[in-house]
Amino acid sequence: MSNQEKQNKKQLDEICPKSQNLSRWYTDVVTKAKLADYSPIKGCMVIRPYGYAIWENIKSLLDAEFKRLGHVNAYFPLFIPESFLTKEAEHVEGFAPEVAWVTKGGTDDLEERLAVRPTSEAIIGHMYSKWISSYRDLPVLINQWCNVVRWEKVTRPFLRTTEFLWQEGHTAHRTHEEAKEEVLQMLEVYKDVVQNDFAIPLVSGQKSEKEKFAGAVSTYTIEALMPDGQALQSGTSHDLGQNFAKAFDIQFLDSDGERKYAWTTSWGVSTRLIGALIMVHGDDRGLRLPPKIAPLQAVVIPIVYKESQPVLDKASEVVKRLAAVGVRAKNDDREGFKPGWKYSEYEMLGVPLRIEVGQRDLDKNQLCVVRRDTHEKIFIPDGELEVTVEKLLVEIQENLFKQAQEILNSKTFKAESFEEFIEVIKEKSGMADTVWCGSEECEAKFKEMGGATIRCLNGDAEGQACVCCGKTGKHRVYVARSY
Amino acid sequence: MSNQEKQNKKQLDEICPKSQNLSRWYTDVVTKAKLADYSPIKGCMVIRPYGYAIWENIKSLLDAEFKRLGHVNAYFPLFIPESFLTKEAEHVEGFAPEVAWVTKGGTDDLEERLAVRPTSEAIIGHMYSKWISSYRDLPVLINQWCNVVRWEKVTRPFLRTTEFLWQEGHTAHRTHEEAKEEVLQMLEVYKDVVQNDFAIPLVSGQKSEKEKFAGAVSTYTIEALMPDGQALQSGTSHDLGQNFAKAFDIQFLDSDGERKYAWTTSWGVSTRLIGALIMVHGDDRGLRLPPKIAPLQAVVIPIVYKESQPVLDKASEVVKRLAAVGVRAKNDDREGFKPGWKYSEYEMLGVPLRIEVGQRDLDKNQLCVVRRDTHEKIFIPDGELEVTVEKLLVEIQENLFKQAQEILNSKTFKAESFEEFIEVIKEKSGMADTVWCGSEECEAKFKEMGGATIRCLNGDAEGQACVCCGKTGKHRVYVARSY
Repeated sequence: MSNQEKQNKKQLDEICPKSQNLSRWYTDVVTKAKLADYSPIKGCMVIRPYGYAIWENIKSLLDAEFKRLGHVNAYFPLFIPESFLTKEAEHVEGFAPEVAWVTKGGTDDLEERLAVRPTSEAIIGHMYSKWISSYRDLPVLINQWCNVVRWEKVTRPFLRTTEFLWQEGHTAHRTHEEAKEEVLQMLEVYKDVVQNDFAIPLVSGQKSEKEKFAGAVSTYTIEALMPDGQALQSGTSHDLGQNFAKAFDIQFLDSDGERKYAWTTSWGVSTRLIGALIMVHGDDRGLRLPPKIAPLQAVVIPIVYKESQPVLDKASEVVKRLAAVGVRAKNDDREGFKPGWKYSEYEMLGVPLRIEVGQRDLDKNQLCVVRRDTHEKIFIPDGELEVTVEKLLVEIQENLFKQAQEILNSKTFKAESFEEFIEVIKEKSGMADTVWCGSEECEAKFKEMGGATIRCLNGDAEGQACVCCGKTGKHRVYVARSY
Repeated sequence: MSNQEKQNKKQLDEICPKSQNLSRWYTDVVTKAKLADYSPIKGCMVIRPYGYAIWENIKSLLDAEFKRLGHVNAYFPLFIPESFLTKEAEHVEGFAPEVAWVTKGGTDDLEERLAVRPTSEAIIGHMYSKWISSYRDLPVLINQWCNVVRWEKVTRPFLRTTEFLWQEGHTAHRTHEEAKEEVLQMLEVYKDVVQNDFAIPLVSGQKSEKEKFAGAVSTYTIEALMPDGQALQSGTSHDLGQNFAKAFDIQFLDSDGERKYAWTTSWGVSTRLIGALIMVHGDDRGLRLPPKIAPLQAVVIPIVYKESQPVLDKASEVVKRLAAVGVRAKNDDREGFKPGWKYSEYEMLGVPLRIEVGQRDLDKNQLCVVRRDTHEKIFIPDGELEVTVEKLLVEIQENLFKQAQEILNSKTFKAESFEEFIEVIKEKSGMADTVWCGSEECEAKFKEMGGATIRCLNGDAEGQACVCCGKTGKHRVYVARSY
């Protein structure tokens, strides 16, 4: 039996049910759908072709949005000299503990050790100080697609890995107003793409002082809720104020003749988003991919007993017709694999639609389409193939969002007292929608409850009392444990 | 004066003439066309947005070809444990002297130091041994787009940098025949793209034993010739035989029931190609980009004296009409910059066509188009805009290739004796087309002539004598100094 056959047989073996052990289910799906594999380097994964194809789709969706909004891509060095990292005090404090250090080049010991970039504010800040000298040079709107490294103790494919792929936008502006607009604009881009294309509902808002990015004035976040009630920070957008401009001397001559520090921002999403996709949408049979992100939107499976050229011809025809209307479709006419076996395989891969082509349906001039999200079997007249498939893909996209929204709703609870708060976090394993006075003490008390943190602020809490200390509330907040 | 204005003024200052000092001219163009900038990390460059846009075009051209031929993309870890790198003896010997080593993660010293990948055969070989177990699993056709690091002593933007971006294809096959076909197929892909899209003529063929990739059975190369007569290795494709399969235990069960080692290949091109583009096509006014690779194919410049709405409207219209036929065009209607100043700027950037829109031409219902390659000024009737621009872009692409071919021809000389060989290398600063007996001694003697190396084999040398020792010739070879 070949490796592929063995692998596939394993896929047919039941994966751990999602409701039974989410963590085991997750790693089962990651490996069985061949999204990623463990590597011999601690905490580093290999992103396999199927997982990478999802990342390519994510990249092209986001990249188009970034460019539409005037951003351009560039590439900055992987290595950051230690002295650069230390220029912004909070920044180095936040990142130093998780930096991988290069200390040797070839046979030489380096005079100054080099950080493998955990994020690129420091090196980009330095370059911007060279490139910017007048208000006419602003804004600078640059994005970078690259790998970054953070030395993590506990890792999990996609969700938290030592090395990951991401994009990091870095912009410089003339005024704080303009920088803040950029920060919120990019948060909206992330929200749109994650909600509309990934079908993942979100809560979003500003981070608390304690949870913000090391070196930022303020951080905005999008947070998805996993089925176990833990939040997953899925993208962040930072208002860096003039902190990095001052640390790296990014100054410009304004039209009034005064030299001023620029206002900078940074924002990023990573391969972690693939972890969110798996967690939120997957079920006991494997992945369920939203059509807009799925590398393969429809798989055509010819059901052939002995020789059956008409069935094979129809299968090819179906793929061609779907490709012609822009549907990503494939014909799996491999011999030596039974149709039922193939069905399971593509369910594991989360392909939104399966189209079965058999002689019986051919005789009736119809096709059998099966939805991955609902397992519903639909017979459609041959002539309605394209329009029905397009309609179903839209419906699946919407349904996945709706189901995920229901999970988010069912796991989010208003907590009006600290007893309720404890109940939400500890017993209901949910996310608390509650009130906070703004003090570090109360934030620390939230954390005593199983490590729950303020995921984001959620508007003013006028006239409401802090759920923890009872004093005047400052913010409504979402509080949950997190990945 | 803003940074941009200053920068642009500098552009108007003459750059060092290409014929006077190629090396200075090269760095002038790289920095003034804002393709790249020097970074504070020794040997590492920043690829600026304009340079990166060229890389994005290169990527999308090659990626489409790779996928058309059945390859898929994936991502493997940046770090390779030292013990993996040492598994293939020649491989480690070739790469160890130029490896950057990570020895510390956070505050911990690592038990085993990690190489920042100089190339990924070792880590990919290890993963393939996990993934491949039957002949049915073959071929594996994976490509990776990523950054790699080689600790170089002497560097130059794009041509040789400590960190660079590249793609590395890694395939595994059932038979040596199939692997060899893959190696030659990918060499052809590189040749096609570099000759047809980059308009850079090449010589190509097998490397000598001495010049082949560390760990390969044989290496094939494409070589471009720079205007100073030095060759630039522009892409390589390696037949790795079973060397890496044996080192990493990539075995499969064949249909005859026997366990066999797979046959592997690897092949890559890098951001170095951008260096070749600059070197080969640039002139004393800056870059000249082949239309197929140019981020911007036509720039429209409205010539406005005081208020002139019709001119501005026409300029926008021209861009829209060109975009509609797939031409990458932009309207530069920035105020405060004189047309002549803009002309120089876009010449520096190598934009193939400039379209001047002025009232006088408008009155005649015509447009003025200027070719970057020949500086020829062409007046075209407004109605013929699209068809003429498309035709001119094709002509420019062909002309750049033709001019480069002439340089290649004029710098390549047959050497029938060792005296002639010395003359070609030392006096004519050219590439010798000559005969080699195949011995290491004669290869070493070539090298004594200013560091000239065999760039590639060029067919059998039946009945011809080695230019060096006079014994029976084995190969016709191209010999030149190189970057």
